[in-house]
Amino acid sequence: MAGNSFGTAFKLTTFGESHGLGLGGIIDGCPAGVTLDLEAVQKELDRRKPGQSAIVTQRKEPDEVSFFSGVFEGITTGTPIGFLIQNANQKSRDYAHIKDTYRPSHADFTYDKKYGIRDYRGGGRSSARETVCRVVAGAIARQLIPEIQFNAYVSQVGAITLKKSYGEIDFSLTESNPVRCPDPDLAGKMEAHIREVRKAGDTIGGVVSCVIQNVPVGLGEPVFDKLHARLGQAMLSINAVKGFEFGSGFAGVELRGSEHNDSFSSDGTTQTNFSGGIQGGISNGMDIYFRVAFKPVATLLQDYDTIDKEGNSVQLKGKGRHDPCVVPRAVPIVEAMAALVMADFFLLNRLSKI
Amino acid sequence: MAGNSFGTAFKLTTFGESHGLGLGGIIDGCPAGVTLDLEAVQKELDRRKPGQSAIVTQRKEPDEVSFFSGVFEGITTGTPIGFLIQNANQKSRDYAHIKDTYRPSHADFTYDKKYGIRDYRGGGRSSARETVCRVVAGAIARQLIPEIQFNAYVSQVGAITLKKSYGEIDFSLTESNPVRCPDPDLAGKMEAHIREVRKAGDTIGGVVSCVIQNVPVGLGEPVFDKLHARLGQAMLSINAVKGFEFGSGFAGVELRGSEHNDSFSSDGTTQTNFSGGIQGGISNGMDIYFRVAFKPVATLLQDYDTIDKEGNSVQLKGKGRHDPCVVPRAVPIVEAMAALVMADFFLLNRLSKI
Amino acid sequence: MAGNSFGTAFKLTTFGESHGLGLGGIIDGCPAGVTLDLEAVQKELDRRKPGQSAIVTQRKEPDEVSFFSGVFEGITTGTPIGFLIQNANQKSRDYAHIKDTYRPSHADFTYDKKYGIRDYRGGGRSSARETVCRVVAGAIARQLIPEIQFNAYVSQVGAITLKKSYGEIDFSLTESNPVRCPDPDLAGKMEAHIREVRKAGDTIGGVVSCVIQNVPVGLGEPVFDKLHARLGQAMLSINAVKGFEFGSGFAGVELRGSEHNDSFSSDGTTQTNFSGGIQGGISNGMDIYFRVAFKPVATLLQDYDTIDKEGNSVQLKGKGRHDPCVVPRAVPIVEAMAALVMADFFLLNRLSKI
Amino acid sequence: MAGNSFGTAFKLTTFGESHGLGLGGIIDGCPAGVTLDLEAVQKELDRRKPGQSAIVTQRKEPDEVSFFSGVFEGITTGTPIGFLIQNANQKSRDYAHIKDTYRPSHADFTYDKKYGIRDYRGGGRSSARETVCRVVAGAIARQLIPEIQFNAYVSQVGAITLKKSYGEIDFSLTESNPVRCPDPDLAGKMEAHIREVRKAGDTIGGVVSCVIQNVPVGLGEPVFDKLHARLGQAMLSINAVKGFEFGSGFAGVELRGSEHNDSFSSDGTTQTNFSGGIQGGISNGMDIYFRVAFKPVATLLQDYDTIDKEGNSVQLKGKGRHDPCVVPRAVPIVEAMAALVMADFFLLNRLSKI
Repeated sequence: MAGNSFGTAFKLTTFGESHGLGLGGIIDGCPAGVTLDLEAVQKELDRRKPGQSAIVTQRKEPDEVSFFSGVFEGITTGTPIGFLIQNANQKSRDYAHIKDTYRPSHADFTYDKKYGIRDYRGGGRSSARETVCRVVAGAIARQLIPEIQFNAYVSQVGAITLKKSYGEIDFSLTESNPVRCPDPDLAGKMEAHIREVRKAGDTIGGVVSCVIQNVPVGLGEPVFDKLHARLGQAMLSINAVKGFEFGSGFAGVELRGSEHNDSFSSDGTTQTNFSGGIQGGISNGMDIYFRVAFKPVATLLQDYDTIDKEGNSVQLKGKGRHDPCVVPRAVPIVEAMAALVMADFFLLNRLSKI
Repeated sequence: MAGNSFGTAFKLTTFGESHGLGLGGIIDGCPAGVTLDLEAVQKELDRRKPGQSAIVTQRKEPDEVSFFSGVFEGITTGTPIGFLIQNANQKSRDYAHIKDTYRPSHADFTYDKKYGIRDYRGGGRSSARETVCRVVAGAIARQLIPEIQFNAYVSQVGAITLKKSYGEIDFSLTESNPVRCPDPDLAGKMEAHIREVRKAGDTIGGVVSCVIQNVPVGLGEPVFDKLHARLGQAMLSINAVKGFEFGSGFAGVELRGSEHNDSFSSDGTTQTNFSGGIQGGISNGMDIYFRVAFKPVATLLQDYDTIDKEGNSVQLKGKGRHDPCVVPRAVPIVEAMAALVMADFFLLNRLSKI
Repeated sequence: MAGNSFGTAFKLTTFGESHGLGLGGIIDGCPAGVTLDLEAVQKELDRRKPGQSAIVTQRKEPDEVSFFSGVFEGITTGTPIGFLIQNANQKSRDYAHIKDTYRPSHADFTYDKKYGIRDYRGGGRSSARETVCRVVAGAIARQLIPEIQFNAYVSQVGAITLKKSYGEIDFSLTESNPVRCPDPDLAGKMEAHIREVRKAGDTIGGVVSCVIQNVPVGLGEPVFDKLHARLGQAMLSINAVKGFEFGSGFAGVELRGSEHNDSFSSDGTTQTNFSGGIQGGISNGMDIYFRVAFKPVATLLQDYDTIDKEGNSVQLKGKGRHDPCVVPRAVPIVEAMAALVMADFFLLNRLSKI
Repeated sequence: MAGNSFGTAFKLTTFGESHGLGLGGIIDGCPAGVTLDLEAVQKELDRRKPGQSAIVTQRKEPDEVSFFSGVFEGITTGTPIGFLIQNANQKSRDYAHIKDTYRPSHADFTYDKKYGIRDYRGGGRSSARETVCRVVAGAIARQLIPEIQFNAYVSQVGAITLKKSYGEIDFSLTESNPVRCPDPDLAGKMEAHIREVRKAGDTIGGVVSCVIQNVPVGLGEPVFDKLHARLGQAMLSINAVKGFEFGSGFAGVELRGSEHNDSFSSDGTTQTNFSGGIQGGISNGMDIYFRVAFKPVATLLQDYDTIDKEGNSVQLKGKGRHDPCVVPRAVPIVEAMAALVMADFFLLNRLSKI
């Protein structure tokens, strides 16, 4: 109810603030018998980690995960998997200046009003640091459903847009550059743009696209928990996300039904895929693809005016070590959340027939 | 788990197929002491009803709701509210031709694969007729939180787009025309376009926008159940929806942080509202606004080729009484789902402080 | 949250007051492909029905159930099963005298304090009439798991106690007499006792025992949702229940571990069954057996003193048509709740292994 | 669903095996603004700890809890509280002999059948060591509702029974002796009995009684989540519990309604309390009292015969450091689970009225 759990059959519950002692979570519902590659989990954390390239925040967070339970001799036992990432680099003094100040477009104001108290250090619970736990759980979810492939990539930074349709993309190129755009030329332009924005003490938004392949037919539940509705919630729950569309998305509204309908081939596949791999909320076996819009990060390196708790004007100095653009580091987070959704529906689908 | 419930504190569970004996639901968690105007509920059903204008389906469904419990002498008692809408107009013979056939971009194929059986009459559970129950529950949710205003309207039909920002709109004009576009001139063009599309035996998509006003500060939960994440799930769970964006949405990715940040006034309101009334997943008291993309309806009045269960080619005749464009009738559904989300968080917020 | 749902994978949500228009429910999570015998459901309702013998209440309630969804041509489709039992015999005038009065050991006082309003007619939501919905859902649950046998019976009325252990009982005799005690001689004594108590305008308590047979190994979850913990909640949620014990129960505390441990035979069965078929919260394949204590009904046919809302003394006349002892009619309710628990764990167990 | 969470508004999720690296949990839903005394939490852990007296297991487990989140400068922030108890004393070699062996009346057999794998060291997840997390969470729950008093005590060991009714007991004496029986004379006899049983290499069962005082009127939900039904589930979910009764319990079935009904005084209190403080599933403000039956511990210090995975006979040597009787250490666990239930309903009750 307080909203720190995600999933039903494969359920992640998380805790932790950006500058507390650590963050962690419990995965409840991972079936027994999954051979876990814990190095693969760490590798996903490393993809999300700060400091991995010149265009992301230079904070140093080792982000090493420890597992406490649920795995015995390398195999899941069906009991809950508890894990912890200790916070190594808590420079709390960095944040004393915002103790009584509401930064624009952050959660400072809303947290204070909702709870009457907040851990103001580095955003506390509302910090994107919270997503480390999602990445851990997502990496385990992927190992439950190894046949399903998750391919997220940056498709837009500011106005620079990858125009290719998802079928034209070579996903093996995504990790070839720090932006995580699978078109190396465009990636270069995006990177240059991010550097320029950062130099100006500013930030810029972007879009992460994701393609899920080798999906079994039948995942998703027909009414409120449609597969895309849960994917949408998952993506919109990531910090800084402002929009989600799948299949034909917003552009599809301009099409006529006769253009938009996906005709069947005799083997049950469809000749087009405006549906985005989901019909009636249930996967049809075609590729699932969707786009996620991220706003520009609110923390600037410019000075700006804002208010304190009493409504007085105050000026905040731009400082700290922040991302000028979140989408490169958001790629593994989008994949992790997608994996959580798919693992959940993979299990739930076992309940649909006698 | 099977996904027929929505909400946690204010929880709706529904049942019913388009051509069974009836559809209904249970609202569990409506507090005691709410004076209910049941005519207002029926009025919302009438806004959703088929046959209300020349540009929607001409099916005749009286859609009268009966309440069985939870209300005593006009006031809620805190016990579950059970309700039923009987199906009056079950022309099941209309659907015999699709018994063993998979219509393109419908849920026929996915249901059969998932469940091994389906009520093929009129889409069964996957029919948009299922949304009658949402409208009933939404109308009750609104009476729990009467101070909050829900204003949905059609902002796009095909390529015809209402360019005004939400602040420029006179919501009192929404119901002045059958399209439910609050700009009467544009509404006329949209209506003409829908008629033309229908004449061609085709269908067209559209966008419903929604503005929620007078929202208390503090609604929403900070991590997985962010206010916009639940709104997103709610909207994406409506039949035919392909995308959701709020605040600056997809367009906002092109802005810089210095442009996008919403500066505070001394009273805690913000001078701009790119955040869309939500910061860190929690309402900040500003207007919440979002857009919902609807694809063109899959059921055409043209003949088309498809396959049967065995993969054989079959030709389907276009017939039946279907909507050429769903957005006019989707307006009350969008409002209902928004009301369910807000009522839920309104109650949950009582748990946030000691 | 408001507590009108039971179960997770096989989930029942109910509504309805004793003197409203009807009671009903939704079963969400019944898998597709179950061939349903709806007459068997009605038969269970008839076992619970008032007026079936001389020793139960003589109210006339036909208790006919209508199904609205989820079943197509006699087979479940995987969509929610909605059902309704209309109230035929609402003698609301019978209850005008308790409108402002709190009957001792009823829920009148607590409902008023909790909700500030109550439907005072016949107990409203707190009436045992609410259990009709449980019986409907339990009867369907049994058809999902037809191999599992549920045998409840009356083992005690007042101080008259069936001394036989469960293995000595011929369950086919349970329905041979109105008390539902499988020992016809003892049943005669119990019946005579109930008649005598009723003649005195009084009521008496009793015990329902239940044996579940042919249980697959592995049902139940190890920590908070132990099989017996959920059975216990299920039974304690039935009106008038004051206690639950399984296996060796309260008597077992006097045994030593060396006496109480159930030694294995080489086939994995145990030579004794003090465990009651459950070890570590999980079924071990042996018979599950438990006992449920029911207090004497609070509604007497004697006059008695009580208070009204303002705390004034008032005298209530004993009248109405009430059960002098609930256990005969509680037998099918106990079986229904047990079936709901077992069906739920039967499905959940599909999630335990990869 | 996998059953490692308890509660809805105040929700505990736990992880951990007896011989893994540690156990821990997440409390989600503790409101902001509670001043936490973390030493009081440790004190409750110490009451549960092994080695605290001569009549309990002599294992050494420091059981020190660390908190990672949700508390800032000593006050809860409304975010999830994550905690960890590291396992200091993992003598895994003690358990190599049971790797392929099923101990009688343990969960070895059922876990293996359910999951196909088990962490056999010390019972793994099925070890009563799991209850450390419950004690931590319960100690925090108590601080949310400090006005409510929880008084558990040992009322029976084997056949030695405390005959006093709960009103005659001086709860301040409970901690005066290692048995935790508030009658020091009887406690001496119980202690002598436990020593004698242990000397014989055997174990013995017992009963823990609990009285909850200063309960506000209105806690509990009327149908499936009756206050006593949730208390029952809570208690039955504790290792080794075989029965639960509240108020008049099993003895009450022999009473007549005219004896059992609790007459009101003019202030709304009742003159007797056979109801046990709960009517219609909702607290009425009177003391809540209940009894919990614990079976004799299954681990003996005698040699005994059992089977291995293949069904072969094997002899197990009695060894290890185990409790001859669990009830003294169960007292704080019963209080903790009761506190979790009450804190949950305390919060949920905020949702009952407008």
